[in-house]
Amino acid sequence: MDRAASPSLAARADDLQQSDIRSVTRRVEEVDGINLGQGVCDLPTPEPIKARAHQAIRDDASIYSHYAGIEPLRRAILEKEQAHNEVPATSPEDVVVGVGSTGVFVSAAFTLLEDGDEVVLFEPFYGYHRNILELTGATIRYVPLGGPDATFDRSAMEAVLTDDTKAVVVNTPANPSGKVWTREELSTLAGLLHAHDLVAITDEIYEYMLYDGAEHVSLASLPGAYERTITLSGFSKAYNVTGWRLGYGVAPAPIAEKIGLMNDLLYICAPRPLQHAALAAFEDLDDDYVAQLQADYAERRELLCETLEAIGFDVPWPDGAYYVLAHFGDLAGTQAGFADDAAACDTLIEDAHIGSVTGRSFYHDPADGQHELRLCFAKELPVLRRACEQLRAAFGG
Amino acid sequence: MDRAASPSLAARADDLQQSDIRSVTRRVEEVDGINLGQGVCDLPTPEPIKARAHQAIRDDASIYSHYAGIEPLRRAILEKEQAHNEVPATSPEDVVVGVGSTGVFVSAAFTLLEDGDEVVLFEPFYGYHRNILELTGATIRYVPLGGPDATFDRSAMEAVLTDDTKAVVVNTPANPSGKVWTREELSTLAGLLHAHDLVAITDEIYEYMLYDGAEHVSLASLPGAYERTITLSGFSKAYNVTGWRLGYGVAPAPIAEKIGLMNDLLYICAPRPLQHAALAAFEDLDDDYVAQLQADYAERRELLCETLEAIGFDVPWPDGAYYVLAHFGDLAGTQAGFADDAAACDTLIEDAHIGSVTGRSFYHDPADGQHELRLCFAKELPVLRRACEQLRAAFGG
Repeated sequence: MDRAASPSLAARADDLQQSDIRSVTRRVEEVDGINLGQGVCDLPTPEPIKARAHQAIRDDASIYSHYAGIEPLRRAILEKEQAHNEVPATSPEDVVVGVGSTGVFVSAAFTLLEDGDEVVLFEPFYGYHRNILELTGATIRYVPLGGPDATFDRSAMEAVLTDDTKAVVVNTPANPSGKVWTREELSTLAGLLHAHDLVAITDEIYEYMLYDGAEHVSLASLPGAYERTITLSGFSKAYNVTGWRLGYGVAPAPIAEKIGLMNDLLYICAPRPLQHAALAAFEDLDDDYVAQLQADYAERRELLCETLEAIGFDVPWPDGAYYVLAHFGDLAGTQAGFADDAAACDTLIEDAHIGSVTGRSFYHDPADGQHELRLCFAKELPVLRRACEQLRAAFGG
Repeated sequence: MDRAASPSLAARADDLQQSDIRSVTRRVEEVDGINLGQGVCDLPTPEPIKARAHQAIRDDASIYSHYAGIEPLRRAILEKEQAHNEVPATSPEDVVVGVGSTGVFVSAAFTLLEDGDEVVLFEPFYGYHRNILELTGATIRYVPLGGPDATFDRSAMEAVLTDDTKAVVVNTPANPSGKVWTREELSTLAGLLHAHDLVAITDEIYEYMLYDGAEHVSLASLPGAYERTITLSGFSKAYNVTGWRLGYGVAPAPIAEKIGLMNDLLYICAPRPLQHAALAAFEDLDDDYVAQLQADYAERRELLCETLEAIGFDVPWPDGAYYVLAHFGDLAGTQAGFADDAAACDTLIEDAHIGSVTGRSFYHDPADGQHELRLCFAKELPVLRRACEQLRAAFGG
């Protein structure tokens, strides 16, 4: 190989590849289909948020902010976490505004983890969590957790803990499974944090997407847990601004300070005018907004889950978030094109012009996801209806 | 120590501290002074850029973009790099839009460098370059370069090269020195890239801020250099949107692809509506905009440099960027409060209510910067005039 033409890269870069999700996106576009793969919400941004964005841009609120975010936004987030999540944060110093909840996850992971450390990740996992944790140099220990009805098993986690285990990643409501951790499960986990000197990073970006009375509980709200917990959330999902790159983390000030400094180094700050816009989420939108959002998503969830069941999938209905991790093991033996997740994903694109994500994307052992596909129902209702019609037309039901 | 209250962090986080720049900012605010420390431009954003931002927000261009940026922006950047910088990039696939040029620097550094590698950094350096390079695990080899009139010394660089040297970081025009690399210097460097199998990361964010006829030359425009060069620039400085977090990198497609994937992992994408707005920089603003910008900065440079000389500083006038790295060695022996850079920085805040940055921030050995302060002249003219009056009132001249 001519090294001049291809300089050698770091090992961490050699491993990076186009994800399945992206290639599905391209193939769905080629057939002018509907992509239920990527978790991209195509709903409009609420007007009060847009209005504040316009105002901030008009006012030239365009220079760097403090690396942890503008003060009024940090304060508003603090008050929301106290009132809504019952998280015992005490000061805006406990809050870091970052470039999406993923950006804060990066800063938190780099702040906590390094070569020689171990970190617990539950399966099925969100791929970015896995890939970012790997960048830190830490070793990931996987603990299976299953679907919405699966219960966190204390002993399964204890089985992977070593003296080097430093952190655990929680995602509730979970992408892709839709599992919402119960208070009891989180209490058990909080006990393990203390017993084994662990820190939790809990990604709660889907906290408002809840169904059938499921309750969102923040780990940090449990007695004694706040001192060991970094809570992440953001604006992308609830306000349909995934591309604005605005999220936040809440942690005890000494930890938040370090996460903020890491955020400074990697991100400088979150996009400034959009920070001002996000204030509208707290000041201009009320509980009715969230109630409407939940009703809207509940309708979409029902539509997609019933459709998938009608065409022969086994569907653990999600308790939260806006994905379905649907099983098609029964079809694998009976219907052509469903031999495994890659084949099923292809079949959905070719026969129904519908994009999905292969189950293997969510497990370290691809075989564990071989009979699963993830589909996202965060779509405009007419689009989702058309998608469901295409699925029924292609596969019966 | 109670580990429960203070979980142990990664070593890389232990090293992170509030930079001098931030603490100066706070102290200047306390005395209601003028901060010439941080490189924050307080000029308004051009209306055509704002107009496109409004349009993108109105149009709900708010979901994730491709991780390397929206296609029309990548194409516009490609055409600008070809026409303006004479960089032989051939396709939008050579372009990665990221979260500020700093964000692309992070992605490039993580793509190229890892434990065991060495990377060359010229002094005085931009602190974020140093700190980000350290995060990659690579070892930094420092090469002194001096002020605007100092010439790149091939032998000084060769002296630090080893079999492990993998990359070199160039910054032209340079922060903080104002040095603009000449074509001859860059040709010499290009020869070293080939001879020693190195890759260059060249940060050209100040490419439009040039004085007294200085010419900006992109390393990647030199014969054979493109294959080994990652060129970074952005919108923050020329269009007064430092807080928008929008920059870009240009490199041969195989490298750009990996940088893009790293960008995906760490940033997901650059802020989407602001990407659309940045198109105005190429489509709605013409050469007159840059000519006016250069005239405006030239006036400010003259004002600040003359003032600093009048109060006794030795001022190497910058050829580019918008900082002065001023020397006060003569004052150190004759005037109280100027014993070293920390004292001088304090004295400027206390006696003139002016913020600056200590010289030590730009050298790995603090002693090398002990008689230097960096001041930024990217300020509204009336503010800069007032700042200069305060300096003259406090220190004579």
